Amino acid sequence: MSDLLPIYLKIRNHSTDLCKELNTEDHNLQAAEFVSPPKWHLAHTTWFFEEMILKPFLKSYKLFDEGFAFLFNSYYNNLGDRLLRRNRGLISRPELNRILSYRNYVDQHIVQLFEDNPSDQVLELLVLGTQHEQQHQELLLSDLKYSFSLNPSYPAYGQQRNYIGSKNQESGWVKIPDGIYKIGHKGSEFSFDNEHKQHKVYLQAFEISKSLVTNGEYIEFIENNGYNNFNLWLDEGWAWINDENLQSPLYWYKKKEGWWHYTLSGLQKIDVDAVLCHISYYEAMAFAAWKGQRLATEFEWEVASDEIKWGSRWEWTNSAYLPYPGFQITEGAVGEYNGKFMSNQMVLRGASSVTSEGHSRKTYRNFFHPHLRWQFTGIRLAKY
Amino acid sequence: MSDLLPIYLKIRNHSTDLCKELNTEDHNLQAAEFVSPPKWHLAHTTWFFEEMILKPFLKSYKLFDEGFAFLFNSYYNNLGDRLLRRNRGLISRPELNRILSYRNYVDQHIVQLFEDNPSDQVLELLVLGTQHEQQHQELLLSDLKYSFSLNPSYPAYGQQRNYIGSKNQESGWVKIPDGIYKIGHKGSEFSFDNEHKQHKVYLQAFEISKSLVTNGEYIEFIENNGYNNFNLWLDEGWAWINDENLQSPLYWYKKKEGWWHYTLSGLQKIDVDAVLCHISYYEAMAFAAWKGQRLATEFEWEVASDEIKWGSRWEWTNSAYLPYPGFQITEGAVGEYNGKFMSNQMVLRGASSVTSEGHSRKTYRNFFHPHLRWQFTGIRLAKY
Amino acid sequence: MSDLLPIYLKIRNHSTDLCKELNTEDHNLQAAEFVSPPKWHLAHTTWFFEEMILKPFLKSYKLFDEGFAFLFNSYYNNLGDRLLRRNRGLISRPELNRILSYRNYVDQHIVQLFEDNPSDQVLELLVLGTQHEQQHQELLLSDLKYSFSLNPSYPAYGQQRNYIGSKNQESGWVKIPDGIYKIGHKGSEFSFDNEHKQHKVYLQAFEISKSLVTNGEYIEFIENNGYNNFNLWLDEGWAWINDENLQSPLYWYKKKEGWWHYTLSGLQKIDVDAVLCHISYYEAMAFAAWKGQRLATEFEWEVASDEIKWGSRWEWTNSAYLPYPGFQITEGAVGEYNGKFMSNQMVLRGASSVTSEGHSRKTYRNFFHPHLRWQFTGIRLAKY
Amino acid sequence: MSDLLPIYLKIRNHSTDLCKELNTEDHNLQAAEFVSPPKWHLAHTTWFFEEMILKPFLKSYKLFDEGFAFLFNSYYNNLGDRLLRRNRGLISRPELNRILSYRNYVDQHIVQLFEDNPSDQVLELLVLGTQHEQQHQELLLSDLKYSFSLNPSYPAYGQQRNYIGSKNQESGWVKIPDGIYKIGHKGSEFSFDNEHKQHKVYLQAFEISKSLVTNGEYIEFIENNGYNNFNLWLDEGWAWINDENLQSPLYWYKKKEGWWHYTLSGLQKIDVDAVLCHISYYEAMAFAAWKGQRLATEFEWEVASDEIKWGSRWEWTNSAYLPYPGFQITEGAVGEYNGKFMSNQMVLRGASSVTSEGHSRKTYRNFFHPHLRWQFTGIRLAKY
Repeated sequence: MSDLLPIYLKIRNHSTDLCKELNTEDHNLQAAEFVSPPKWHLAHTTWFFEEMILKPFLKSYKLFDEGFAFLFNSYYNNLGDRLLRRNRGLISRPELNRILSYRNYVDQHIVQLFEDNPSDQVLELLVLGTQHEQQHQELLLSDLKYSFSLNPSYPAYGQQRNYIGSKNQESGWVKIPDGIYKIGHKGSEFSFDNEHKQHKVYLQAFEISKSLVTNGEYIEFIENNGYNNFNLWLDEGWAWINDENLQSPLYWYKKKEGWWHYTLSGLQKIDVDAVLCHISYYEAMAFAAWKGQRLATEFEWEVASDEIKWGSRWEWTNSAYLPYPGFQITEGAVGEYNGKFMSNQMVLRGASSVTSEGHSRKTYRNFFHPHLRWQFTGIRLAKY
Repeated sequence: MSDLLPIYLKIRNHSTDLCKELNTEDHNLQAAEFVSPPKWHLAHTTWFFEEMILKPFLKSYKLFDEGFAFLFNSYYNNLGDRLLRRNRGLISRPELNRILSYRNYVDQHIVQLFEDNPSDQVLELLVLGTQHEQQHQELLLSDLKYSFSLNPSYPAYGQQRNYIGSKNQESGWVKIPDGIYKIGHKGSEFSFDNEHKQHKVYLQAFEISKSLVTNGEYIEFIENNGYNNFNLWLDEGWAWINDENLQSPLYWYKKKEGWWHYTLSGLQKIDVDAVLCHISYYEAMAFAAWKGQRLATEFEWEVASDEIKWGSRWEWTNSAYLPYPGFQITEGAVGEYNGKFMSNQMVLRGASSVTSEGHSRKTYRNFFHPHLRWQFTGIRLAKY
Repeated sequence: MSDLLPIYLKIRNHSTDLCKELNTEDHNLQAAEFVSPPKWHLAHTTWFFEEMILKPFLKSYKLFDEGFAFLFNSYYNNLGDRLLRRNRGLISRPELNRILSYRNYVDQHIVQLFEDNPSDQVLELLVLGTQHEQQHQELLLSDLKYSFSLNPSYPAYGQQRNYIGSKNQESGWVKIPDGIYKIGHKGSEFSFDNEHKQHKVYLQAFEISKSLVTNGEYIEFIENNGYNNFNLWLDEGWAWINDENLQSPLYWYKKKEGWWHYTLSGLQKIDVDAVLCHISYYEAMAFAAWKGQRLATEFEWEVASDEIKWGSRWEWTNSAYLPYPGFQITEGAVGEYNGKFMSNQMVLRGASSVTSEGHSRKTYRNFFHPHLRWQFTGIRLAKY
Repeated sequence: MSDLLPIYLKIRNHSTDLCKELNTEDHNLQAAEFVSPPKWHLAHTTWFFEEMILKPFLKSYKLFDEGFAFLFNSYYNNLGDRLLRRNRGLISRPELNRILSYRNYVDQHIVQLFEDNPSDQVLELLVLGTQHEQQHQELLLSDLKYSFSLNPSYPAYGQQRNYIGSKNQESGWVKIPDGIYKIGHKGSEFSFDNEHKQHKVYLQAFEISKSLVTNGEYIEFIENNGYNNFNLWLDEGWAWINDENLQSPLYWYKKKEGWWHYTLSGLQKIDVDAVLCHISYYEAMAFAAWKGQRLATEFEWEVASDEIKWGSRWEWTNSAYLPYPGFQITEGAVGEYNGKFMSNQMVLRGASSVTSEGHSRKTYRNFFHPHLRWQFTGIRLAKY
């Protein structure tokens, strides 16, 4: 892990880079309880290093601010009381500048920590902290997109990067024979606890599409009455689209001249050849039913992952987020990272166009509730 | 299927038998949207036979009452509009007597149908109807218990049957070696579509308890601060017990002299040796975590089922309710029976002391949302 | 008060008379938290006599049932805990027959009480109890109508009485000159505490219509876009009709061939000449604004009451329900009868076609929240 | 109105003065739907001048930004669609600086308008606009206090002004004889439409306290179990304090060493001699009941207003907010200013320590819902 410090600094800088085109006021936006403001992400990821590493392991470390633990703890019950999640956008003080100072302060002390030849335990926690920060980089973008989307002027976050997703996909299907396969992570590279332990599963033979569903294909589903045909929907999905009065993916708007969607570059006409984004598990399942096909399980996906191109959308699987055989919850706060969320969520595999570089692998298990759509989610079909 | 008619009649009579100690007013009780009144169960199961069998297959059959389809359809979108679920308790008219006439009318026509040498398709639907009625018999009892429980006088449903659950359980663990096992139903006896198709799974070696958790063991968990230790709980379980202010299973009351619970025989002192009942998946998971053990998956349960005694509690498994490989949704209304509920629910295996006789098998998949407790649910532990 | 006993018995019998065409199941209907089942009304009015009179004043009186105080207290905090209001429809036990026995038992003891030459205090409470019972007779009918209305078969309560309201009204306006007038009750006949004390008010000159608004006039308002013109509505009224998606009075249904409404005689075509019913204060205010007129204050109404014909609809006034000068809350439970409801409610004056005979007078102050419509409410216009 | 321009400019500058100690992020705080961010107040008051005056009356006026009407309309249905109220805090763009430019732009054009010898109608609207802006200055402070209060660091808005309220009050009672009095505004100075028309009322003789209730008196009420004695409370008040679990005024915290409260100068120990603040109508009524006294009506208050010192708290009256005799709603958007809010609100009289200078008069009618507490509200007692 000799090269960890430059990686650490690179990842840390990427977080502030992501915010460099934001104005001060943008940093506090929180449009719903399930999103967090950019400033909070910047502070919380910093607190994680302070709380998990500097406080226990750097001798005579002095907290930057005693009150920050309360403000910037996310959900760690083991680490004390915390601000109500829905109030994160109300923290106009400490100001942005003070959070940026906090980041510098913590980074300097992490550098100092490296000078003392840190133990393997510390190094492992440091890697965990960088992975954690990368997760929040993705959240920062998807959260900000959601908050911006409620501003009637449809602000552009920036023009510098293509978040729309690739257009020229390979066609056809990958065939996988039945048999026993190994699932889960093994080896010395970083992985989360929920990827363990590696274990065997038996899979039936199946086929999985080489391409993700495009906007054009999904428009066909809409125009074929997809949102009004109950036979295609899970019961809770059907209730949900009717309660919420939904007829399209998140951020889509029907105008006279066709479909538009809000993107991080502002409101844009939808490109029918581009990859579909911002759909819920329920919509993914309904679309698959309409096609007479299905979603892959997370095990099928992992087995096929070397033969498909993935990376512009998180792909809903038809697997519930549950522990692998032999999964153990770690003692203490780190143990709250993953295991306690194993109910009512579905696994997503792959990565998306807003996933940070280097933060993806074939055993990675992302998870969200089936009705959520503000992540960069898409559909890959499978069949027997 | 030569003996189907007597079976049909026996099952149909069992439904009215279950109500024979109820007064007329009890028949309309609906204490929450998720329960239904006894009268509605009696009518809905009858409508199922009328709608699925008599209407399409008995020549010149005349509906008993044109309005009943609207009143007594449960959730079949394919069969038209229906009464809002929460309003089932408001149907004081048609009166109970008219529902009993409806039952007789439909039974007579089913008898008539048998005289015409019914096709295999009809016979299969008849079996489905009887299985459906047995499911509602169990619901009738659990629903009624729930509705009664909100009457401060704690009415006794009847004394005639022991619903408390067995007390003398075998102790110890069953060991199952790793390997490939067959899961799901195959053969000519009745099974639901969600038990299909039979398929192979690979299981790690595991052990499963021969006994269900008792009230006494659970009281120990309570007294060891189980409901106040967040480390034991799934995140949504922890939120749920705190929002609802829960500190014990459903129907339990702490009095000075100890724990009491409401039962179908009225309020009773809790027997510490009897089998625990009316707990949610969240509580089952927390209890298992406290024990340092876990719940079995539904596959483990099925493989071990021949070597454990089951039948007084529905046993929560740690498997989400999802389709088996190759599961196909049937065309039409029958297809709405199971598949559309495959989200956010956990599988329960076994049977309970209120399950109708003959309505259980080792491949049977029951399912409920993880916070629900009004079914006769319990815990069996497993470990590697 | 020598004739009080026959009056008592007549009023008591009227309650059971009102239920004589109901089936046993109808007696438990409670379609919303704000309505109560007929059985509960029958029991609660009886409990009032038991709790307020027999228990404190009849020597060696033995309660009919110790548990009834909990079940049949409505809102008297001074009289102990009580059943949650929304659960009144769940009391299938005690059965209807036992409630009828309770009524007889209490009536017999009231008769016995009369034999002992009761004190003035007791006689006053007895009168209060009969007035209270008459209020519940009206509620019984309006509550039952509401509960029946959710049964898709639109049950007919009975044909024996005309609840539709008179048709041939006098036209024109009554003119009242400005000046000081006396408002409120004075004298020896019964009145509620909220009618006291009599006091002077100064009124500007005004005019008040001799007739109530008819269905035909209101249909004109609807057809003139009344429910879609925000300028006519109070802000909270506008929010309410939009949240609830309302376009007509309660119980109205638009069919191809015109307007129908649910009545206690079943679903009927609306008679345009009959008096409008089941509208909220918000609708009354919007209609008046559309006419360029207004509602009278309760003081104007009382002053004009001798010159207008009233009695088929409770008439919304533009007065909030607040204490008269010198109003005193009585000590103890009786003090909870009226005073504690003096917030967010509007006064209605007059009486309706379901008000019990003898239960109306010009100083009577009825009151409901401005969005409620299940009472038999109507509109009388006023102007300066 | 020759001096209107300097008054206009002074009032406009006061708004930005109020924000001069805020950081950029503070300007977007919106902690609840019923409060608005400072930036929104700054923009909305400016839009009012643009929309009501510049657009219709300044020839060739060019809107500063076409999109602002949607963003900064508050509740004027006549003026088109608008941003959802709860989303006001999400408008990070336009930035604060652009709003300040907007203010300058509009101010410059108002100056230009003055050069053209504006009509009386325009001058009247200008006065209305300044009065409107002063109302928002008070809201800006009370809203900001509310939003700040949810920041665990209890930010200090500023030290420069005493918002705690006066301490040395006169004691004793003012006696007013019965008789006919004139109520409401008449004359050429500015007043709102809801103060019209002036009219006669008859009042009983009464007494009104010369002082407002102090913190010390209210602590006595709390310590005498005031929040737990249902006999003191209106029914909806009792439900409200129990649902919300309230035991003290807004912003009060009980510490070991006594009562503290959050103020615009940060968290402070409560001064028992200072005037009580931030109580609801329900609490005011309960306190008065506990004292055996009452709140004055708004008419009593107005009649006595010359003989009492008022101005540090808005004083709850026992009058509902309803139209005066002859009240007329103005045509168009200005007509939405007051009249449409005349339901479910109570009148407050006087002014508070955050009311802008020059924005109070004895006929002024403020109004809020009875459970709201974030205004600077207090209690003055009355009796007969």
